[in-house]
Amino acid sequence: MGGILGTEICIAFGADYNPEQWNRDVWKEDLELMQQAGVNLVSVGIFAWSELEIRPDEYHFEWLDDALDGLAASGIKANVATATASPRPWFSRLYPETLPMLADGSRLWPGARQAFCPSSPIFRKHALRLTTKIAERYADHPALAMWHVSNEIGGHNALCYCDVSAAAFRRWLEDRYGDLDRLNETWGTSFWSQRYSEWGQILPSRQAATFGNPAHALDFRRFSSDACLAIYIAERDALRKITPDIPITTNLMPNHRELDYWAWAPEVDVVAVDHYLNSAEPEAHIELAFSADVSRGLAGGAPWMLMEHSTSAVNWQPRNIPKQPGEMIRNSLQHVAHGADSVMFFQWRASRIGAEKYHSAMVPHAGTDTKIWREIVELGGILERLQEVAGTTLSADVAMLYDWESRWALDAPSHPSVDVKYLDQVHSLYRALWGAGVTVDVIPPEANLAGYRLVVVPSLYIASAVTAGNVEQFIATGGAAIVTYMIIGNRATSPSSRVKWFATVSSMWRMVPTR
Amino acid sequence: MGGILGTEICIAFGADYNPEQWNRDVWKEDLELMQQAGVNLVSVGIFAWSELEIRPDEYHFEWLDDALDGLAASGIKANVATATASPRPWFSRLYPETLPMLADGSRLWPGARQAFCPSSPIFRKHALRLTTKIAERYADHPALAMWHVSNEIGGHNALCYCDVSAAAFRRWLEDRYGDLDRLNETWGTSFWSQRYSEWGQILPSRQAATFGNPAHALDFRRFSSDACLAIYIAERDALRKITPDIPITTNLMPNHRELDYWAWAPEVDVVAVDHYLNSAEPEAHIELAFSADVSRGLAGGAPWMLMEHSTSAVNWQPRNIPKQPGEMIRNSLQHVAHGADSVMFFQWRASRIGAEKYHSAMVPHAGTDTKIWREIVELGGILERLQEVAGTTLSADVAMLYDWESRWALDAPSHPSVDVKYLDQVHSLYRALWGAGVTVDVIPPEANLAGYRLVVVPSLYIASAVTAGNVEQFIATGGAAIVTYMIIGNRATSPSSRVKWFATVSSMWRMVPTR
Amino acid sequence: MGGILGTEICIAFGADYNPEQWNRDVWKEDLELMQQAGVNLVSVGIFAWSELEIRPDEYHFEWLDDALDGLAASGIKANVATATASPRPWFSRLYPETLPMLADGSRLWPGARQAFCPSSPIFRKHALRLTTKIAERYADHPALAMWHVSNEIGGHNALCYCDVSAAAFRRWLEDRYGDLDRLNETWGTSFWSQRYSEWGQILPSRQAATFGNPAHALDFRRFSSDACLAIYIAERDALRKITPDIPITTNLMPNHRELDYWAWAPEVDVVAVDHYLNSAEPEAHIELAFSADVSRGLAGGAPWMLMEHSTSAVNWQPRNIPKQPGEMIRNSLQHVAHGADSVMFFQWRASRIGAEKYHSAMVPHAGTDTKIWREIVELGGILERLQEVAGTTLSADVAMLYDWESRWALDAPSHPSVDVKYLDQVHSLYRALWGAGVTVDVIPPEANLAGYRLVVVPSLYIASAVTAGNVEQFIATGGAAIVTYMIIGNRATSPSSRVKWFATVSSMWRMVPTR
Repeated sequence: MGGILGTEICIAFGADYNPEQWNRDVWKEDLELMQQAGVNLVSVGIFAWSELEIRPDEYHFEWLDDALDGLAASGIKANVATATASPRPWFSRLYPETLPMLADGSRLWPGARQAFCPSSPIFRKHALRLTTKIAERYADHPALAMWHVSNEIGGHNALCYCDVSAAAFRRWLEDRYGDLDRLNETWGTSFWSQRYSEWGQILPSRQAATFGNPAHALDFRRFSSDACLAIYIAERDALRKITPDIPITTNLMPNHRELDYWAWAPEVDVVAVDHYLNSAEPEAHIELAFSADVSRGLAGGAPWMLMEHSTSAVNWQPRNIPKQPGEMIRNSLQHVAHGADSVMFFQWRASRIGAEKYHSAMVPHAGTDTKIWREIVELGGILERLQEVAGTTLSADVAMLYDWESRWALDAPSHPSVDVKYLDQVHSLYRALWGAGVTVDVIPPEANLAGYRLVVVPSLYIASAVTAGNVEQFIATGGAAIVTYMIIGNRATSPSSRVKWFATVSSMWRMVPTR
Repeated sequence: MGGILGTEICIAFGADYNPEQWNRDVWKEDLELMQQAGVNLVSVGIFAWSELEIRPDEYHFEWLDDALDGLAASGIKANVATATASPRPWFSRLYPETLPMLADGSRLWPGARQAFCPSSPIFRKHALRLTTKIAERYADHPALAMWHVSNEIGGHNALCYCDVSAAAFRRWLEDRYGDLDRLNETWGTSFWSQRYSEWGQILPSRQAATFGNPAHALDFRRFSSDACLAIYIAERDALRKITPDIPITTNLMPNHRELDYWAWAPEVDVVAVDHYLNSAEPEAHIELAFSADVSRGLAGGAPWMLMEHSTSAVNWQPRNIPKQPGEMIRNSLQHVAHGADSVMFFQWRASRIGAEKYHSAMVPHAGTDTKIWREIVELGGILERLQEVAGTTLSADVAMLYDWESRWALDAPSHPSVDVKYLDQVHSLYRALWGAGVTVDVIPPEANLAGYRLVVVPSLYIASAVTAGNVEQFIATGGAAIVTYMIIGNRATSPSSRVKWFATVSSMWRMVPTR
Repeated sequence: MGGILGTEICIAFGADYNPEQWNRDVWKEDLELMQQAGVNLVSVGIFAWSELEIRPDEYHFEWLDDALDGLAASGIKANVATATASPRPWFSRLYPETLPMLADGSRLWPGARQAFCPSSPIFRKHALRLTTKIAERYADHPALAMWHVSNEIGGHNALCYCDVSAAAFRRWLEDRYGDLDRLNETWGTSFWSQRYSEWGQILPSRQAATFGNPAHALDFRRFSSDACLAIYIAERDALRKITPDIPITTNLMPNHRELDYWAWAPEVDVVAVDHYLNSAEPEAHIELAFSADVSRGLAGGAPWMLMEHSTSAVNWQPRNIPKQPGEMIRNSLQHVAHGADSVMFFQWRASRIGAEKYHSAMVPHAGTDTKIWREIVELGGILERLQEVAGTTLSADVAMLYDWESRWALDAPSHPSVDVKYLDQVHSLYRALWGAGVTVDVIPPEANLAGYRLVVVPSLYIASAVTAGNVEQFIATGGAAIVTYMIIGNRATSPSSRVKWFATVSSMWRMVPTR
């Protein structure tokens, strides 16, 4: 029976594993504990640039050789990272022009992570050089099960407003529009005297005196998502040249706002996602279900990987709440029930250092005589007994159209009310379906609707003619659709639509201002 | 009978008209609908720089010729703009030093509007060149009724902290103070070691380590208002040279904070204002009355023009509430009742593009089979029947002294309480008078008080010796005055004043901190 | 009997005195009123750079000569400032590179005060030149009682992120760590790929894409405190060279966050502090008691000077509440009861100018026929009658360990909850002791605990091995200790500690998120 990775792994169980933070005695204990818990896959080297390329083009792979050999000897597979998630400090010291720029013109400096402009050709060159080195070195390593490109690409630096990004944005626009007249027409630059007479006049949607052109801002978001995706594709292609048969992915964030993952999903060999509960959300388990359904949607219904979640509290929310007893196992199985063939965590062993030292892990600071470790061991046993669900898929009668572009466009400023936010609208309808025990496929806006009984279209601000046609056809052939307000894109192009685009009464109250 | 513009127009009825956003078929419908509604005046070309000067000094006036010819043929007058409200993108591409700078040193980039430093001589040169071209071309056009200089000057960019503004600020200070000792004395630079020994040391009141010198900040505001006014005056003078008999104005914003309109009012041939309701204000109709009284005050009691308001919701507030049935007509007539001889809107036809596409208009997106259009037609009929009120004026027994300089000075930081804000104090007293059905003249702080029975002086932080003398004389001759607290300016110069400068008990509670 | 300054002064009574803001008539009245109130010490020249060095190296001391002569003739001693608290505008005009930089890269401009980078060698050079001039001129002046270095050093500009600070930070780090490997190990740079290969790669903890390295941020705070202290030491040493017998101090701010005053206290000849009530704090009198105990702790139990507090409202809080009748005297005596041998104010006469013109003073704007003046005269009489308490000390059975480094470290981001703030934890326990009428010594974390019955250790995030050993030994010899949670430093180094590091139940609820 082949699992999600085409290997002997049925349900992957493991974590990010960062041996570079620990001495060799700890490595030894790590392998023993991994075996004890039933860990079968770990992600290695994600932030290892620092330890691999000490100075430009001076590499130290020995420690990683040893770590991977240890995993292989213990029967644990490795999801080997390209290690390009965060460049070492020498990089921005040599190339300060690669630092990301905020909309106000200030820079993001090194000291955290992802301190690079996604469009930087200098960053790209260095990242590909390292990627190729790693691929060459570990192509035939017995532990290698898959490649992990970068990490949460665009998590912090998706929107870079620097001059390098400006030039890349212009090239992207030239590709999209061909001639400047078409761009001027589409953006509506006759409003507020914004017509461009040369490509070189176009800038990222930087800090301006008042509301910027909304089409400009929307295209800058599209470009930014594509610029981040291009990082993935470049590293993937470098890997594929060397190891054509090893699956390649990167960890997506289904509740992240900045990236249009419908465009990303076709580029990965297996959809892998990171998911973290929001402590401020009283019904976080419903958001988990929605994010898991988004993940399954990205995978086209096929099994997907939960690449990261947490064993208990995280460290980056204002108030980080530890999980209740049993909650981590319940969350894990909830992902499996929504189609995940993998339960993985950030991270294997809780760090003693760095910005995430308060982030929970499989092995907590307090060691193995702990609630968390006991539950990890229990979870390993449960997943072992669940092998028969691996590779299975779900079927749903209900589909919800979901769209990152509509999220960007609806949440833009200078709209009727700041209280109308895309994800609230989506969650509001999803919550009702979840409460009724309905399984929902979350699908792209232009997806085929055949086979569903009900299609839900929450506030799909940018609805294309294809989408409108699909929904009309779906209704004409007996389907039922719920379409809520703030749908703009298609009014002009399909004025005689037979679809009744209406606002649900239950959502409409949100238009009333809060006092 | 000559109306407000010295033409056959009695009460002006119309809107901003932006034909550059539409094709010629729409233009044709526009003229028919304008006639149907009784529109007699439209403002044309306000943001047309983009369509008029495609490249530096390359002009395309043909479309505007046609639009004005169409208006003339339809018997509709034009308020022709100088089109300098927002430069085209090529401008800041060629002259990046003209971008406005915030107090923190960051720039405001193009992409919205008004992306220019008010003190920039380069901007001034280009704006005057365009103004002159327009004046020459349309001086004798039959549609031309008046000139509209720029648009809401200083609406977003009044306070620019760049080095060009710094140099202009120093010249303004040299004019005001003559020698540096007098400036040092007036600003109190012996406090916190701030004494200047050369003019070149003086900067705009940029971001500092803690509270800046309040006199410095106040003078920077005075300078900034004057710098914006200078834009108006320069364009006005360019127009007047070519068309000495055509009235010239610009649209003021009576509830705007940054500009001292008492200094502006004498420079316009007719006072024209923009007024928008604040959706977050439960008694917005009282604020409307106050702003209308400010407008009448700016006009010295003469009729004034409502140059812009909205038919329903705007787009730029956090929550933009559509108007109730009848509310738009009521608001319009409320302005007329307070002295307006004009009811005009932003804008004629709702945009399909740009940052204000959710702003209501005379012709809504949904066309003429709508509440808004029916009310517009109804309003046109009402104004037609109200011709006899055109040119009439109001008389009031009560005057309120109002002052932008006091607003700047009172609202400055490092004061007793952030809860004491000038406009709140003013509105609080105005609201009481409004509730009692009292008509109020809002007048400048040094105005002649003869003829009033009651004078209200709310928190006039900067009260000159002239003002104090006027109020004393007014009381001495039998008048009654209400003077509330936080009046500073005159204590020193008139210590023996017979006026009892007292704090009203009803306002005094505001000094108690909120918990 | 010799008082705190080794002079005839027993309890110092006075204020900041800024004659440069007033004409000579006022000076004359000042001296009469000082004598009337019993003032015996005033701080002179704190912000006088402006009036002393008109142009680079051009000095005007005559006015200060006269002011000091007047004080001497009236029997009033002077605490003469080095006048370096805020450079004159010519300084940053000539040396713009000395302006402080925020974490986002923007500058703090002149116009307020303290517009200089603490690490600037150019600033240091100019400050020492002025300090030396002043010391030479007034070394033998009969009014001179003590020297006042700068003013509230680091109050606004402690954290400067400019390139000059970056270089100084690197030198500081080289001194601290010797080699880069040790820094990498201590900072945990193997997390998120942050390992440095050259000192030149290290920057201040500037604005980054997400949470920065916490050890990096902590060391930057340590460096910044030392950089500010170095200003004090440099000026002190310049003074001491000329007047070896005159006591030297600077005014510390016990509730200020940015400076580790345990390192500062040994460098001053007498501990002097500024204390202001927080109007938003309903139990400000308890915070006063705590700050006074911190001050006594800084003085090692010896008498200390209250160098500044206010007679009534200040001007720099959002809502500045005047003091109730009797409150100023009560506050003053509360400081004396906690060990102060001095009651001084900012400032002698309320300014008519500048950013603090609403700050209360000993002589209010309204003159001497006022509540404040009557209370000042009353307070002078009380202090005269309290001479016998001068030089006395307190004894306490209870000690609380307090630590600025732990405050920086505990309040860092990416921690379990934003609701857990160091000062809240400290105040919470102090408040309980205050309510029980217990006198508390606030002492440094590694202080000798002998002689106490109870030691309280609130959330001492960075507890060294010395501290842990002290507390263990203290308990072993019969002492009782209360140690609350979020103590990190020593777990690793003393795993077998006999001390039970526990969280008090009463504080633990704070970990629950607020809703």
